Amino acid sequence: MKTSFDILYAKNKPKGEDFLSEIEAKKPLFICTIATTETGKIAGISAAGKHPEFTDYTPPADAELLLLGRCKCIPGVPVTPDGIPTPALITMSALHLADVPVLVASGGLKVKPQIPFLDLGGNPGRDIRSGNAVDNVPEVLARAKLAGEQLAKTADYLVIGESIPGGTTTALGVLSAMGVNAEGKVSSSMPENPHNLKHSAVIEGLAAAGEQFGSLAKNAFRAVSCVGDPMMPAFAGLVIGAATEIPVLMAGGTQMTAVLAVINALNPDVLCNVAIGTTRWVARDVTSDISGIVSQIADVPILAADLDFSGSRFDGLKAYERGIVKEGVGAGGASIAAMAATGGAVTKDMLFREIEHSYAVLMGAE
Amino acid sequence: MKTSFDILYAKNKPKGEDFLSEIEAKKPLFICTIATTETGKIAGISAAGKHPEFTDYTPPADAELLLLGRCKCIPGVPVTPDGIPTPALITMSALHLADVPVLVASGGLKVKPQIPFLDLGGNPGRDIRSGNAVDNVPEVLARAKLAGEQLAKTADYLVIGESIPGGTTTALGVLSAMGVNAEGKVSSSMPENPHNLKHSAVIEGLAAAGEQFGSLAKNAFRAVSCVGDPMMPAFAGLVIGAATEIPVLMAGGTQMTAVLAVINALNPDVLCNVAIGTTRWVARDVTSDISGIVSQIADVPILAADLDFSGSRFDGLKAYERGIVKEGVGAGGASIAAMAATGGAVTKDMLFREIEHSYAVLMGAE
Repeated sequence: MKTSFDILYAKNKPKGEDFLSEIEAKKPLFICTIATTETGKIAGISAAGKHPEFTDYTPPADAELLLLGRCKCIPGVPVTPDGIPTPALITMSALHLADVPVLVASGGLKVKPQIPFLDLGGNPGRDIRSGNAVDNVPEVLARAKLAGEQLAKTADYLVIGESIPGGTTTALGVLSAMGVNAEGKVSSSMPENPHNLKHSAVIEGLAAAGEQFGSLAKNAFRAVSCVGDPMMPAFAGLVIGAATEIPVLMAGGTQMTAVLAVINALNPDVLCNVAIGTTRWVARDVTSDISGIVSQIADVPILAADLDFSGSRFDGLKAYERGIVKEGVGAGGASIAAMAATGGAVTKDMLFREIEHSYAVLMGAE
Repeated sequence: MKTSFDILYAKNKPKGEDFLSEIEAKKPLFICTIATTETGKIAGISAAGKHPEFTDYTPPADAELLLLGRCKCIPGVPVTPDGIPTPALITMSALHLADVPVLVASGGLKVKPQIPFLDLGGNPGRDIRSGNAVDNVPEVLARAKLAGEQLAKTADYLVIGESIPGGTTTALGVLSAMGVNAEGKVSSSMPENPHNLKHSAVIEGLAAAGEQFGSLAKNAFRAVSCVGDPMMPAFAGLVIGAATEIPVLMAGGTQMTAVLAVINALNPDVLCNVAIGTTRWVARDVTSDISGIVSQIADVPILAADLDFSGSRFDGLKAYERGIVKEGVGAGGASIAAMAATGGAVTKDMLFREIEHSYAVLMGAE
């Protein structure tokens, strides 16, 4: 009898099912790739911090939450301006239920987390409007590849997530530079997706770099250097290093498509071992189109954890059903891994109860 | 039929055999813990660099050698003043033969390696004669413990090595502060063991800290802070975090005894899951006494890889038989792990041939 999982297929169901059966009952390692970029501070771009300068603290705080069950570099947990909590809450609950090991890798940070993390030699990112957003892209990618090669020997498969405020804007930047039509298609952590703001920032960045739509289709390093963010070379390197040996679930929303474009330009062969894992909120989002972007790049399946917070006691979780936050810190992929690793013993209901519990404890709601 | 391994037992053979059978044919993860201390620059203390300032480069160069098969931060490989190559050559050969994954963890470095490494929040160490040698000892140990807990979920057992020039002097410091009689018993990378120099540095450091022999027997944090080095809290934390769940082989010479004293003071319960793995050159060394130190601390077995370089074509390797270098970068423990992981398929002869080959390639000897 085939196990049933609370997982949806947003793209290429047969390949997605194959991927899932390959990882079923196997042992994952979760890696959270964190970085910061000044792009996240452009007014109206990100919901990942109450004030722009808070975005420097969101990635380290998310990483601390995953490893410690609480944040150290900020009081409480990261919240949106409306008080909606970080999706790291979902990730930590999922990883806890399936006892999945976690490592944190830094692509470049302004504020360092107070936990162990893999340093990949990167620097924090600059505003993409400068056209010169990321340092040392080939070197960070090479180091991340080395780490991916070693970590591939320690797990049956990797699940890699990210935390970087402003990441969908930099994703639009890299996709545009590489000739992928993503305008109006990247997701947002806010209910009103500020597509125009993102598009303007990308146009300004490409112009500052002396580039235009598609002019860097064959130069992924330069695309990231000009209008990307420091999470990208770290994430792409980890995938390239590991996926030659084991399956890799790229855990995230539309940001994953920019990383996918980078990998596809550098090492397309590894993509047969890769899937994207996201949430139902991204897969069903009417303000973005993850499948439409991926289709232009490579035939990679998209799985989505069928999470549902409509029955929550907490407004902060119910808000996810209104399209706020949606995804991040590998929430969807971690949920998929928790279900797959336990052969379906972890269900969406069990995840929901654990997330409600974590929310109550961390937000002091009971 | 019991497998035969090229492994000697330097202390507590029955427990050592039990440990070996527990790790036989299991999957290890090797962690190289690196750090630097100004103590390594005291004239005549260490052979780990031709000039005192070279000791800042030895640990990152060793780490690069393990991950890349070559060094990036220096030309060639680390050598003693007489041109004898780093024991990382042994470690990389052993790990290669058994395809053992490697991670690098930093306790605090002056020069960072150009490879991925786990940042544990530490700073480079000061000269122990200041009596104020290491910053943030409890915090680094806590972060390393977190890393150890996570990594314990990714491997059947851990093998942890170190690279820190000056490490036997700081070991004597911590052992003395904690009331373990190690004077004249710590090893040296040089054929003439400078016991008096080490002793004087320790006496000066204890006096500067307002401490004396044994006054910190119950205060491991302060012992390391005053007269230890930044490798110690990183190493001890990794062991404490992992050994509650899986076996840990502490790979090194007499430096391991100081780490053992720290662990024994903080979490003695984990020591039932711990063994020391070293080389025949340390186990048989007449200028030091690893068993004599360990006996004063805890009943932990000592295994020794039966390496023999007497038949080498190269003077740089033959020198090991004259007591030069002897151990470091987990060379002995990595050799034991390579033999155990392959169920004895990797032998001392095979290791020797691989090491000769690595030497020839890296030293440009053929």
